[in-house]
Amino acid sequence: MKNYDIKSLSEDLSEQIKHKIDTKTKPLGALGRLEEVARQVALIQQTLSPTLNKPQIVVFAADHGIAKDGVSAYPQEVTFQMVMNFLAGGAAINVFSLQHDIALKVVDAGVNFDFEENPALLNAKIAYGTKSFLRESAMTVEQCGSAIDKGAEVVRNIHKEGCNVIGFGEMGIGNTSSASMLMHAFTGIPLENCIGKGTGVDKAGYEKKLSILNEALERHGVSDDPLQVLSTYGGFEIAMMCGAFLQAAALGMVVLVDGFIASAAFLAATQFTPQVKDYAVFCHKSEEKGHRSMLDYMGVNPLLDMNMRLGEGTGCAVAYPVLQSAVNFFNEMASFESAGVSDKG
Amino acid sequence: MKNYDIKSLSEDLSEQIKHKIDTKTKPLGALGRLEEVARQVALIQQTLSPTLNKPQIVVFAADHGIAKDGVSAYPQEVTFQMVMNFLAGGAAINVFSLQHDIALKVVDAGVNFDFEENPALLNAKIAYGTKSFLRESAMTVEQCGSAIDKGAEVVRNIHKEGCNVIGFGEMGIGNTSSASMLMHAFTGIPLENCIGKGTGVDKAGYEKKLSILNEALERHGVSDDPLQVLSTYGGFEIAMMCGAFLQAAALGMVVLVDGFIASAAFLAATQFTPQVKDYAVFCHKSEEKGHRSMLDYMGVNPLLDMNMRLGEGTGCAVAYPVLQSAVNFFNEMASFESAGVSDKG
Repeated sequence: MKNYDIKSLSEDLSEQIKHKIDTKTKPLGALGRLEEVARQVALIQQTLSPTLNKPQIVVFAADHGIAKDGVSAYPQEVTFQMVMNFLAGGAAINVFSLQHDIALKVVDAGVNFDFEENPALLNAKIAYGTKSFLRESAMTVEQCGSAIDKGAEVVRNIHKEGCNVIGFGEMGIGNTSSASMLMHAFTGIPLENCIGKGTGVDKAGYEKKLSILNEALERHGVSDDPLQVLSTYGGFEIAMMCGAFLQAAALGMVVLVDGFIASAAFLAATQFTPQVKDYAVFCHKSEEKGHRSMLDYMGVNPLLDMNMRLGEGTGCAVAYPVLQSAVNFFNEMASFESAGVSDKG
Repeated sequence: MKNYDIKSLSEDLSEQIKHKIDTKTKPLGALGRLEEVARQVALIQQTLSPTLNKPQIVVFAADHGIAKDGVSAYPQEVTFQMVMNFLAGGAAINVFSLQHDIALKVVDAGVNFDFEENPALLNAKIAYGTKSFLRESAMTVEQCGSAIDKGAEVVRNIHKEGCNVIGFGEMGIGNTSSASMLMHAFTGIPLENCIGKGTGVDKAGYEKKLSILNEALERHGVSDDPLQVLSTYGGFEIAMMCGAFLQAAALGMVVLVDGFIASAAFLAATQFTPQVKDYAVFCHKSEEKGHRSMLDYMGVNPLLDMNMRLGEGTGCAVAYPVLQSAVNFFNEMASFESAGVSDKG
């Protein structure tokens, strides 16, 4: 994989940003999280007049060998069927992207299906799904590096068109299992606390999932090398998201992080370059069991907690107007002075 | 005051709504709170194709006698100055309403100021502010009834124009004190747990506020009659909001509830007609100390928790796109069958 050079945010404008927020016609701090987000976006863009331009969500889709070992409530073909649904405009992410005028792109990172050509679908297939990490490494280190670099390339092309705010979603039956393994490997949190019900296995299904993932862990253990970990337990869509996060931050974009799977990909990105976190807005807390602990491990607090657990980037899309509200109040609200309002006595 | 007849929601469509939600191309329940909101809006509108039409926020502004007794960090004239700011488009609620194409109306419910005529400002002044409830009842029972009915009239006129979703905001220096007294009177929660820092008093200011409100409570006590309670401790903007809530629910509108003050007005409305709750979407949890307990008392869970504490209806405006997302997925997402996606195995 390439090297992604991400700068820590300069605090040069910090005082000016604080002054601009604190002189708005509102009690000090009264816009809460919106103030934090406004500050972050202004620091990322190094300006007192930040803008969100050509917002974009990219959904990476891929299949997982582990899905055939009985970790999921849905059959593997749902991955390609859902890609078709994205292309036809019928999925949740289509609805929410359309609502907020967010451009949507779907990337075939490694779906076990041959799609017909479609302008809305980018073919970046690494293989027809990963191998099952129950028996062997999900992918080779070379495949993993290619996937990371391909995700980065997708972002560079979008950035060239003028986009400065980007979120990533995923689709891949079985990918909560992959994300749970990555979470355990990168955080050391006990595996059982990293595993949830995914898209909806029942109690027996959950026990089976836990047992399968424990078996995989015994087979492969945990490496100190993040690329090795990602190769062993990752998915093609997760590796591409990881590269996409790194590249977006390196380009100084505002980076939207979705739920459990996306956060696991983001966690992988922090293993390569911790500064990626400066550029990230965590959009929502997923209902998937391990997500809260993963967020706590990273020391971040997402914007929304709506009991959602759908993936596809839906958390990014639903949270996007909140981000826009943060930028808007910062740019548009009057100050005490300009509005002739008395400040605190 | 008039009688506001509010029907409990019919559950006739309940099964059909559930079926429509559960056959969307997503795991069961995966859209969390959005599914609950979609269900509620469909039940309110008694349709499988709900719509949000001509969304409106009304900001009621009024002054409070108690403000002159030192309960607030800001001088009383900030109330009229902020009304001028609303009319000039410089306040937070202007920014967020504009962002989401929500119509905004400001009502002078009883500000201690004579405004020039302005098409964006409705003159419904009951008096030039309430009396201080530290010494006497904030308003007469007649004034209170007039304010309730006036709030209702405002809503009827907006409803006539085709609006079916409405939120209410407030502006009134000193009104967290009024809301705290109402909260205590209606819930029985100890007064100190109903009092917060408002728009930002410091620790000494908070102690003073607590002592003043305790003194007021000793003077007036708590009546069993909600109109009496509202007259004693209320504000004109709070009483108007109360009437507005009742009328909006009686008309079958979707009713958006903002933060601490709005929730206190809503709590008053539930004392008159508990069914008002069926129509209410609680938009956010305010940082104001008592709000969580008040919401818990009513058994409701707001959509957002963004550490905001600004009032003006800003929580309604920021949460509005989430409500719209709920309606949109319900109307626009494909079903497993229509999209050709395999359901759970």
